Amino acid sequence: MTLYVDLAEQLGARIEQGLYRPGDRLPSVRALSLEHGVSLSTVQQAYRHLEDQGMATPRPKSGYFVPPNRQKLALPKINRSVQRPVDVSQWDNVLELISIPPGSDVLQLGRGMPDISSPTLKPLLRSLSRLGRRQSVAELSYGCIHGDPGLREQVSRLLLDSGCQIPYQDIVITTGCHEALSAAICATCQPGDIVAVDSPSFHGVMQALKGFGMKALELPTDPLTGISLEALELALEQWPIKAIQLTPTCNNPLGYIMPEANKRALLTLAQRYDVAIIEDDVYGELAYSYPRPRTIKSYDDDGRVLLCSSFSKTLAPGLRVGWIAPGRYLQKVLHLKYIGTGMTAQLPQLALAEFIESGHYEPHLRRMRSQYTRSRDLMTDWVRRYFPVGTRISQPHGGFMLWLELDSAFDSQRLNRALLPHKIQIAPGSIFSAAGKYRNCLRLNYAAKPDAHLEEAVRIVGATVAQLLDSDH
Amino acid sequence: MTLYVDLAEQLGARIEQGLYRPGDRLPSVRALSLEHGVSLSTVQQAYRHLEDQGMATPRPKSGYFVPPNRQKLALPKINRSVQRPVDVSQWDNVLELISIPPGSDVLQLGRGMPDISSPTLKPLLRSLSRLGRRQSVAELSYGCIHGDPGLREQVSRLLLDSGCQIPYQDIVITTGCHEALSAAICATCQPGDIVAVDSPSFHGVMQALKGFGMKALELPTDPLTGISLEALELALEQWPIKAIQLTPTCNNPLGYIMPEANKRALLTLAQRYDVAIIEDDVYGELAYSYPRPRTIKSYDDDGRVLLCSSFSKTLAPGLRVGWIAPGRYLQKVLHLKYIGTGMTAQLPQLALAEFIESGHYEPHLRRMRSQYTRSRDLMTDWVRRYFPVGTRISQPHGGFMLWLELDSAFDSQRLNRALLPHKIQIAPGSIFSAAGKYRNCLRLNYAAKPDAHLEEAVRIVGATVAQLLDSDH
Repeated sequence: MTLYVDLAEQLGARIEQGLYRPGDRLPSVRALSLEHGVSLSTVQQAYRHLEDQGMATPRPKSGYFVPPNRQKLALPKINRSVQRPVDVSQWDNVLELISIPPGSDVLQLGRGMPDISSPTLKPLLRSLSRLGRRQSVAELSYGCIHGDPGLREQVSRLLLDSGCQIPYQDIVITTGCHEALSAAICATCQPGDIVAVDSPSFHGVMQALKGFGMKALELPTDPLTGISLEALELALEQWPIKAIQLTPTCNNPLGYIMPEANKRALLTLAQRYDVAIIEDDVYGELAYSYPRPRTIKSYDDDGRVLLCSSFSKTLAPGLRVGWIAPGRYLQKVLHLKYIGTGMTAQLPQLALAEFIESGHYEPHLRRMRSQYTRSRDLMTDWVRRYFPVGTRISQPHGGFMLWLELDSAFDSQRLNRALLPHKIQIAPGSIFSAAGKYRNCLRLNYAAKPDAHLEEAVRIVGATVAQLLDSDH
Repeated sequence: MTLYVDLAEQLGARIEQGLYRPGDRLPSVRALSLEHGVSLSTVQQAYRHLEDQGMATPRPKSGYFVPPNRQKLALPKINRSVQRPVDVSQWDNVLELISIPPGSDVLQLGRGMPDISSPTLKPLLRSLSRLGRRQSVAELSYGCIHGDPGLREQVSRLLLDSGCQIPYQDIVITTGCHEALSAAICATCQPGDIVAVDSPSFHGVMQALKGFGMKALELPTDPLTGISLEALELALEQWPIKAIQLTPTCNNPLGYIMPEANKRALLTLAQRYDVAIIEDDVYGELAYSYPRPRTIKSYDDDGRVLLCSSFSKTLAPGLRVGWIAPGRYLQKVLHLKYIGTGMTAQLPQLALAEFIESGHYEPHLRRMRSQYTRSRDLMTDWVRRYFPVGTRISQPHGGFMLWLELDSAFDSQRLNRALLPHKIQIAPGSIFSAAGKYRNCLRLNYAAKPDAHLEEAVRIVGATVAQLLDSDH
């Protein structure tokens, strides 16, 4: 064990034991350096490690503090039921979630909507408006099938932060991440093929597997470290898996960041069994720690990783601009892109390229990361306060989603029906499983600015959960 | 035969015989009414019939005239080679056509680009700009999976003109017509299935068949009346066809309008053999005659027709807004829409709804129809003037595409290479055939405002064709 991990664990133990209480200032870097006889940078590394685990919070110029209410709720359990490839179901429940039009008065705590009210988005809107006013060929005509070269260059530059050196020629702009993921699936698999997925997993990908006739093999997934590599290896032994699809960084719905070592190990397994990896990185830039975690793609040396992402979570989903870096599958993906949508709308691409090039993207990301970090703490606190004892909860390290697990008999679809009169909607857990598991789980969105209205909504959801649990007993 | 058809044929015969020469004014409605003892409205109907056939041109307040240069070039021949289902090829040639970025200095005579410089588009740009400036949930968030209800209502209203009464609930907004067509194919067919198509046929659909693993059965298609019903019936007898895909109104690339009787007969055949019809109507509103022709969908009484269209040809392709009225396949299409792109971008949908609702769409269509009619005549004239004797040419009744057929040994891919130094690109005929037929054909776009520059380009293409033909002999 390295020095800094050792030190972090000692500090963590003291926090867990209550030697430092929520809100307390933790010892200064200098003091710990003297106390333990280690360098300043080792202490700093230890604090960053604790911060990643949500055990310490930095405050500028004041040092590190114990986050409020450190007594943790338990994590969701790992699903260990027998794995076999299944046909994907749950479409009706997904459809219910996505059929509510924008502007409806239902509070959609279930959808993957970022906060789009940030003032840091204003330059993007200005670009959209200004470019929309021009009557130039660029905005109204067919663009290049690959997408706007200027935007692709900016994406290529952004990818450097995740450890990827991908020339813009190897990037294809898509209509949101959906199109990227669907193209990735069709480029690597045939109908009837088996795709291994993390579990719980993004419903969009699983519905794509359903639509194109592939089977999903749901693998046990740790709520802190992601897909079980042991289970994956066994599955690769046992089944003719064609691709692994996962969201390793700021996972949806669990919020974990797969450790770098696991990412590398997963790639090695994929190479050994010669399967493709479809890496969804759509929340990757919303990791609460900086610099952002590396992608599996950043280790890819034989082009088997198809990296899929978009601006839907970092900026606004209504733009419908995503991208894919498809490695060796570039030609196939181009063909699928052509038949899927012909090309991606020009105007949002040009506005995005301008927004990023002018340096507006990074400040926006910083703001959202810090807002979502605070909101996670608040939302976690509200769940602790308003949900029944025994509620298990994820510990997101990025993004804006909480995953809750209730008593095994609980039914979150029933919860949604009970919430109808309150005009609140949550995402039922079952849509995150091909086979409809996780009925006792639900996903909550904490992207919106936390206010009394939101707190009241969480209180209502918690109280309704309690009522339903009571009525069962 | 009805009175007006009889009268139209008599007039037509006189024109063909040279009694009226190109540019001559034709007899007034009143004069013909007196001469033939028929009502004024019968004469008017006869003139509209002649106009539909390209034999008479109305000039406001001056009456009808013989179009310039009435001596016709021969029509393209009907392909009568043996039909069997084939895997689609030609992707490389399609990719070449669609890889040129907008703003490049290549004159793209091959692409399906409308004229986007019309001042009648200005209100749309104003809406785009104004809506883009607002920072409202409506533009930036996820919309409803079906598309914006306001736009769907406008589309429902527009569809009335084609004889369709389709409530907005049965319309799904898509990312261009590409997404509509791909969804229609996947909703009705499985990999390995056979789809009957008109021939030549839109390359986008055929590449979709390739991408999803279906086979194309190319049917003989008349350059004036469309798909051969006899050949279709034989094919339905012989092969387990799952769907018929065609562009019956203002066909791409041939420009014909399938007569209403044929449309009804085709639907009857589809019902008898229980196959779906995928009707591409993307050029339908650009028919030169008014009111616009009916769609096959307008006769559909059991929901087997999936009507696909978009604003890409009538307004601007860069918007990427299309729609599908999928009949009985609605639920399947919704699922495919979800996995394909999640939803369609909000901003262009809202701007389009505003544009149509404010009454700007009809005047724009009228302007484009009359512009494209004039351009067809001019372009036809230039081809007659600058292309080698023996060139066969289509007689488009809508849209903005000409289809040319040259000596059977001619190679239009070679032509494109020879045109490279001139920075001109045409669409090689082979991409309009699954099996790569029509190498001796090419498609020319006449959407752009005709000017000396365009005429010079057509002259260069014609001269290059002549050179290549000469070098072969």
